[in-house]
Amino acid sequence: MGRWEPDARGRLMAAAVELFLERGYDATTVADIADRAGLTERTFFRHYGDKREVLFAGPVDVHDVLRTGVVTSTRPGVAPLTLVAGALDAVCALLQGDRERSRRRQQVIDAHDVLRERELIKLAAMADTIAQALRGQGVADPAASLAAEAGLAAFKVGWEQWMTDDSGGRDLTDHVRGCLDGLVGLAGGSPAPQSPTQAQATTKTRTQPVKDSPRPREGRPA
Amino acid sequence: MGRWEPDARGRLMAAAVELFLERGYDATTVADIADRAGLTERTFFRHYGDKREVLFAGPVDVHDVLRTGVVTSTRPGVAPLTLVAGALDAVCALLQGDRERSRRRQQVIDAHDVLRERELIKLAAMADTIAQALRGQGVADPAASLAAEAGLAAFKVGWEQWMTDDSGGRDLTDHVRGCLDGLVGLAGGSPAPQSPTQAQATTKTRTQPVKDSPRPREGRPA
Repeated sequence: MGRWEPDARGRLMAAAVELFLERGYDATTVADIADRAGLTERTFFRHYGDKREVLFAGPVDVHDVLRTGVVTSTRPGVAPLTLVAGALDAVCALLQGDRERSRRRQQVIDAHDVLRERELIKLAAMADTIAQALRGQGVADPAASLAAEAGLAAFKVGWEQWMTDDSGGRDLTDHVRGCLDGLVGLAGGSPAPQSPTQAQATTKTRTQPVKDSPRPREGRPA
Repeated sequence: MGRWEPDARGRLMAAAVELFLERGYDATTVADIADRAGLTERTFFRHYGDKREVLFAGPVDVHDVLRTGVVTSTRPGVAPLTLVAGALDAVCALLQGDRERSRRRQQVIDAHDVLRERELIKLAAMADTIAQALRGQGVADPAASLAAEAGLAAFKVGWEQWMTDDSGGRDLTDHVRGCLDGLVGLAGGSPAPQSPTQAQATTKTRTQPVKDSPRPREGRPA
């Protein structure tokens, strides 16, 4: 990348998301994106394989981040889910910088089946990477696969919560951590409503164990 | 379906999986499948939209089964994950009839990215259906989404275990139940190995909580 293209990747991504929202994903070409970013098509292809990749290729390899997160969280006596939490913390720290940009990107993805599929594949690949890293730390299957898949479940739901939470009080890490804590609470008994009409009334009580778990948090990477 | 086509769907599915394994998925046409099943192409298209659908469209709507499983498991004081377990039990009962057929089908899917993607989408849709059914029973978000996603994580891993478990002693329901129980155990502390070389030695101890959880099982639909 030459000096005359400062943050070309970031500019191309911002331009792409802008155009996808304005004109739609299908109607936007690589030439349009490069033009909006004030760069050439050739520069575009130096950074991304195609217009879909702009939405999914971050500046850092997320799989490296996950692997490192698992390794740095490993200590004697630590639970598999704590290693997963360490990996997800590291990814959350990477992703939570600009919520509005993430939100616009998510809007584009939600509007297109092909992009939502790509996102599911990305999440499945993240789970595979975590499971492999856990095995590398001595966690056997099925615990390794299970912890990884459960962690991604928490990540997925935490991400959705972060996207829709306009209170601004909790960052992505908080939401994902809350969901990881909530996984454990789900198995405990809680009062089920006697009839569907009572459902609304019990809503608040039922979510509390997930949001405000008193369980001490452990295993965050320093 | 006329009387001269007994179990046309089943015959077409068996023929398709046979041919996909013999010739490869891409090299097999709808005409080949119909021919092998001793039926016409027209009959094929009366049952399936395309050759991919043969692998994914079962005789019963899995989403109906999931919804019913959640509803019939609902009782006062029941935990969200127990409702999910009820839904998954119902689906497992439906799917575990012929392990060898499931295994051959899985072999085809694992060999093709486009089919693996289709399977991920199917699993994501199952999670969405369970989450919606939970909301219908008064479980609020994020607990509803989280329980549904965690349940699918258990289903996915339980399915993989079932596919590779040649002891024959445990059916799909057992494996998925074991994984659901294991979700809770993942958060508890367990001895992490001090070094990767010690990993193998601790393998057996570490999987025990997942495989042999002593927690009583509740909430199976009658």
